[in-house]
Amino acid sequence: MLALVALPLTLMAQKKQFTIDDLIPGGSTYRNMQPETKYFTWWYDACMELGVDDCHLIDIDYGLQRDHALLKPLTLTNINSILEAAGRKKIHHFYYASFPYGNRSCILLPDGNNKTIIDWIADKVIWKSDIDPKATGLDWNKKSLATAYVLDHNLYVQTSDGVNQAISYDGGLELTYGESVHRNEFGIEKGTFWNEEGTMLAFYKMDQSMVSQYPQVNVTPYDDSQVYQGHDSASIGSRCAIVEPDPYPMAGEKSHKVSIGIYNTTSKKTIYLNTGDPTDRYFTNIAWAPDNRHIYVIEVNRDQNKGSLDEYDAETGEKTRTLFTESNDKYFEPMTPIQFLPWDSSKFIYLSRKDGYNHIYLYNANNGKMIKQLTKGNYEVMEVVGFNNALQTIIYTSNQQDPLQKNVFNVDMKGKNKILGNSTGYHSPELSGSSTFFIDKYSSPMIARHIDIVNSETGFETNILSSKDPWLGYNVPQIKVGTIKAADGVTDLYYRLILPTDFDPNKKYPAVVYVYGGPHAHNIDATRNWGARGWDIWMAQKGYVMFCLDNRGSENRGLAFEQATFRKLGVEEMKDQLKGVDFLKSLPYVDAERLGIHGWSFGGFMTSSLLTSFSEEETDNPYIFKGKCPFKVGVAGGPVIDWKFYEVMYGERYMDTPQTNPEGYKYTSLLNKAQNLKGRLMVIYGGNDPTCVPQHTLSFMRACIDAGTYPDLFCYPGDGHNMFGTDRIHLHKVITRYFEDHLK
Amino acid sequence: MLALVALPLTLMAQKKQFTIDDLIPGGSTYRNMQPETKYFTWWYDACMELGVDDCHLIDIDYGLQRDHALLKPLTLTNINSILEAAGRKKIHHFYYASFPYGNRSCILLPDGNNKTIIDWIADKVIWKSDIDPKATGLDWNKKSLATAYVLDHNLYVQTSDGVNQAISYDGGLELTYGESVHRNEFGIEKGTFWNEEGTMLAFYKMDQSMVSQYPQVNVTPYDDSQVYQGHDSASIGSRCAIVEPDPYPMAGEKSHKVSIGIYNTTSKKTIYLNTGDPTDRYFTNIAWAPDNRHIYVIEVNRDQNKGSLDEYDAETGEKTRTLFTESNDKYFEPMTPIQFLPWDSSKFIYLSRKDGYNHIYLYNANNGKMIKQLTKGNYEVMEVVGFNNALQTIIYTSNQQDPLQKNVFNVDMKGKNKILGNSTGYHSPELSGSSTFFIDKYSSPMIARHIDIVNSETGFETNILSSKDPWLGYNVPQIKVGTIKAADGVTDLYYRLILPTDFDPNKKYPAVVYVYGGPHAHNIDATRNWGARGWDIWMAQKGYVMFCLDNRGSENRGLAFEQATFRKLGVEEMKDQLKGVDFLKSLPYVDAERLGIHGWSFGGFMTSSLLTSFSEEETDNPYIFKGKCPFKVGVAGGPVIDWKFYEVMYGERYMDTPQTNPEGYKYTSLLNKAQNLKGRLMVIYGGNDPTCVPQHTLSFMRACIDAGTYPDLFCYPGDGHNMFGTDRIHLHKVITRYFEDHLK
Repeated sequence: MLALVALPLTLMAQKKQFTIDDLIPGGSTYRNMQPETKYFTWWYDACMELGVDDCHLIDIDYGLQRDHALLKPLTLTNINSILEAAGRKKIHHFYYASFPYGNRSCILLPDGNNKTIIDWIADKVIWKSDIDPKATGLDWNKKSLATAYVLDHNLYVQTSDGVNQAISYDGGLELTYGESVHRNEFGIEKGTFWNEEGTMLAFYKMDQSMVSQYPQVNVTPYDDSQVYQGHDSASIGSRCAIVEPDPYPMAGEKSHKVSIGIYNTTSKKTIYLNTGDPTDRYFTNIAWAPDNRHIYVIEVNRDQNKGSLDEYDAETGEKTRTLFTESNDKYFEPMTPIQFLPWDSSKFIYLSRKDGYNHIYLYNANNGKMIKQLTKGNYEVMEVVGFNNALQTIIYTSNQQDPLQKNVFNVDMKGKNKILGNSTGYHSPELSGSSTFFIDKYSSPMIARHIDIVNSETGFETNILSSKDPWLGYNVPQIKVGTIKAADGVTDLYYRLILPTDFDPNKKYPAVVYVYGGPHAHNIDATRNWGARGWDIWMAQKGYVMFCLDNRGSENRGLAFEQATFRKLGVEEMKDQLKGVDFLKSLPYVDAERLGIHGWSFGGFMTSSLLTSFSEEETDNPYIFKGKCPFKVGVAGGPVIDWKFYEVMYGERYMDTPQTNPEGYKYTSLLNKAQNLKGRLMVIYGGNDPTCVPQHTLSFMRACIDAGTYPDLFCYPGDGHNMFGTDRIHLHKVITRYFEDHLK
Repeated sequence: MLALVALPLTLMAQKKQFTIDDLIPGGSTYRNMQPETKYFTWWYDACMELGVDDCHLIDIDYGLQRDHALLKPLTLTNINSILEAAGRKKIHHFYYASFPYGNRSCILLPDGNNKTIIDWIADKVIWKSDIDPKATGLDWNKKSLATAYVLDHNLYVQTSDGVNQAISYDGGLELTYGESVHRNEFGIEKGTFWNEEGTMLAFYKMDQSMVSQYPQVNVTPYDDSQVYQGHDSASIGSRCAIVEPDPYPMAGEKSHKVSIGIYNTTSKKTIYLNTGDPTDRYFTNIAWAPDNRHIYVIEVNRDQNKGSLDEYDAETGEKTRTLFTESNDKYFEPMTPIQFLPWDSSKFIYLSRKDGYNHIYLYNANNGKMIKQLTKGNYEVMEVVGFNNALQTIIYTSNQQDPLQKNVFNVDMKGKNKILGNSTGYHSPELSGSSTFFIDKYSSPMIARHIDIVNSETGFETNILSSKDPWLGYNVPQIKVGTIKAADGVTDLYYRLILPTDFDPNKKYPAVVYVYGGPHAHNIDATRNWGARGWDIWMAQKGYVMFCLDNRGSENRGLAFEQATFRKLGVEEMKDQLKGVDFLKSLPYVDAERLGIHGWSFGGFMTSSLLTSFSEEETDNPYIFKGKCPFKVGVAGGPVIDWKFYEVMYGERYMDTPQTNPEGYKYTSLLNKAQNLKGRLMVIYGGNDPTCVPQHTLSFMRACIDAGTYPDLFCYPGDGHNMFGTDRIHLHKVITRYFEDHLK
């Protein structure tokens, strides 16, 4: 008997166990446990491998190094001797290198805010730039070699000759130039936009003087070592906490006002687009016309239910015309600037979800009329990657193949599309100069990481990296994916189920749901291990069933799927998650009395909502579920507690304003559900979270205290909306300990 | 067998169990569980009982009501009809009434900031005042009927005729008039000081413009009901959190500057005492001379190791003389203004700890020479209560009888003293107009509450209230008091030990230490139940041994006992507490593996210190104990974490400055001990604590996160240094749950 029992234990013992540092980003061994990778980039249509000691040219057909085409070896030794001779700092590897000009043997090497271009055949530095190391938002134009940058909220341009031109002088916290606006919604990620020639710079200016400033508090504004050395405050400043105000417009309150400037590097003049009073207007998706003279802006109203594509004259600032308008009875959210066809400047493409899914539309630039819907179907175009001039095709990614996948496609001007490269998994393509090739980096549930070079014309694939699964030899739990029906009874929802390591179907296990549930994100996809998170694996190893469900409201499933949550965020999402709970309870090895849930941000809102939305008593809140909460334990991180504390752009899109949707705000607010908390709920927040400001968590604590309910709390002072590095390890130990304390 | 076992259970079942609301202030039944009380006050030498419907005159010899001496019944009905006729608000009881003039049938009735004086025989209002309801710091002089008050940091006087005189105009957060200064240290509790005639007003002015402002954040600055009603922000203001800066000088940093003004209500002129540059000087213990012209100030230097009694001319502001100086090699802390003998204005008394205990000294006011030390011995004079003109005695309280007691004494000018009234327990006397009598309110370990009238001349005692023990019939645990030796091997320390309810000596119980440990406070005394806290009883009922020890550094035991902790707060205190742990471990029914500790404020510092001051490894910190922490669980409330975040006055008295005592600050700082945390430690803080500012707790969290240790956290947003009302119940449920989760 002893031998029989001991045998499987011995077998198991041969497989290695994970440490938390293996699994969580920031862990000391995390990188070792990631699939091996290599770095590739394009030198026009030549594929370059960026190494530590060298750069190699890779043969596209065979995937082999063919360095003789470089004429001269591109080695760290050579490059560093050139850099040193020019008085530039040495580099330690080529990972950040690029090859901006297809027809020249030029390598661009960044060093912080500085750039150096070396001609490696001529053996010399041919251009360099030095930008203030405190500058942010650097935007370099490879044609004019001009760099736009921001210092202390003012905008500057450094021209190719190294001369700095100041574009603004009165920038500050309340008035910004050249910075991103509208809190990075509507796909906005930056505040400067060069025309193709790099001679005219469109930029955002934002007046925030009318916006409430959230008082973020810095509790470590001093050098501690100095204090204990006995230095006095005169030399080291006060050690008292300081307030760092952050303009944060809350839903329904006064919002910032944005305008768009155009700076001409030759005339050194700035004009502003003549939009009229910018109050309650969003200026999004800036695009230059190929004529380098006109500029396109998609304007959205504050209600976010209609918009227009407007053309302005960048010389005069006057609006020249409105090409078209679009509206939606819930919300309209343009995410992608229009793009002109490289082979026909009289046409552009526009991405819209007007038929219910994100698709590519071809437009006539002369009259603003739609020519053709190029893609169509119950799938989402994810991003337009580029254009193939020769074939006159558009290359894009979509989940047409499978809702969980992301593959590369092209479509011609007749709307005929085809998949490019491997048809499984989740792909990130990078196009070559002519778009004939792309580097296709992908993973799939069973593939850790592959990189192919794909010929987008012939479909020919050359594998240049096949990473070994770094978890081979480890005791990896079983990971399954499937679908259940949403609460609407119709819609398929994807779930991911992870069985405890060394699963025994005759045992009963506690189960933990990981949830996000908000728009613009998903958790389950066809990447490595079905997108399982390291913490899922960690918890499975500790003996938990781990479950995750992408409810209605999440991304990639179409507009109706997403908009089901409109004006009552959390409600349909919770109903779907409860379907997931029903499924979990149907599993014979799940202990229905030991269910936990964890989520961050929107997932923190979902977690807190689920722990506080059950009541045995009658209530006037239509969003309360009658009965007992199925979750015994929850951990909510950086949660939204009440949408009235969230910002205008995201918040009003989904919830309208507290003025126009008071009941939606009231009945989804956890301040008004605090009295229902019965299970153990820990709320964790970043002490300086600029996204879900600490007011959410702190006012929830206040509401629970007033209601006589008993959440737990943790805070990461100095951290923002997420924890990184060793703080992230600490965080996951705290989260894990909470489940071990109360659910195990 | 069954019957035998069942019998004691049945007996026990007859005794009632406490609810937490019975035991914690703020609980719904807390008041019912307190000893019955009655309210008495003096009408010169006539004792008045203040009731709901009537006031009664109490016969001093028999304790009986003798209302005919009032000539007219003092009933709520009568008084309210007079108030109503005069257009004043009705009262609901007489609890706040007083009788300011011994020779007149006048009753003073306050209503918020307003006062009304009624002659109850003449049946009319004879005087009234109406002060702005937002005013604070009201200081009324019964002779001139003038009221000093503060509005928005400016000082005003309303004279008896109702005319308001503004004394300052430029007051604000950074410049205050008439408010308390030096953060209420040195016995300072207010900012205005009338001369006896009520014609001249001394007041503090404080310049805080050079002081760091702690950014307290108010997370509920809006009316929530309005938001959910759909009102827009224009009508209700922003709901975004706001910063409420609080000037808070941290140890070693720039401190505020104080001056003393004298306002003459007749000339309406203000002069300031000519003290010279007030930088780093404390002006404390203001006293008027009987001549109504001179004023006395005890000045203390920033180092708080020396001071002087200075006399100023209140007409000219010039210093007339320094009467004497006092110094101490550790610190000098005057707490009581000088008081002139009513029968001899050439002499005053002064309280000093210069012989090692707080005693009364008689001084010659003409030459500043000490005439005689009136009290002497290894005990502390607690407070001077008053003077008996007829006997020429000083009436005071002290713990001469027993270190745990507080009794009433008098001493004559030869230094002969005697105890007055009951010689057990803890007394709060209130003297009659002539000081012949005092109302003596007291309790003792076995006496819930007694009130006697004591004739201070004859010693005759008349009992006027003997409250029944409100816990009769409840299952009260055994409470014991005793002494152990301090870590110095010599000093006796008092402890209080509470056995679990239904104690069984054959069982093993977890034990929890409650600790404060800082100066100016004690936990064990001869009050009801030896000062046991309601939470102690609650925990005893839940099966914990509760232990408390007043370590060296705490009050009432003399200067050497207190000053043992100088420049290394927490260190000797911890050593003493560890002696308490040794004692606890010696008890056969205590489970040494299940020791917990809880404390608030200084006790929070002690708790956190004890959980983080043990290490198995060598360390350069001389204040780390080698070995394993004896405590498995701790709950630290509103803790000091690092004295460099505490305020100048208290902090520098005990710790000097970070500049002059860098090692003391460094090695007592829990930021530098965070890595030693092994047990479970929950830190709880008031989100707006103005005393131990949130920076303490938050920077400790940051230090623990950085060190990879794992405290728990809770916050009471909007609360200050302590929680009151239902928050206090919530708090004690949170604290209790933590021990139940981790220690039980």
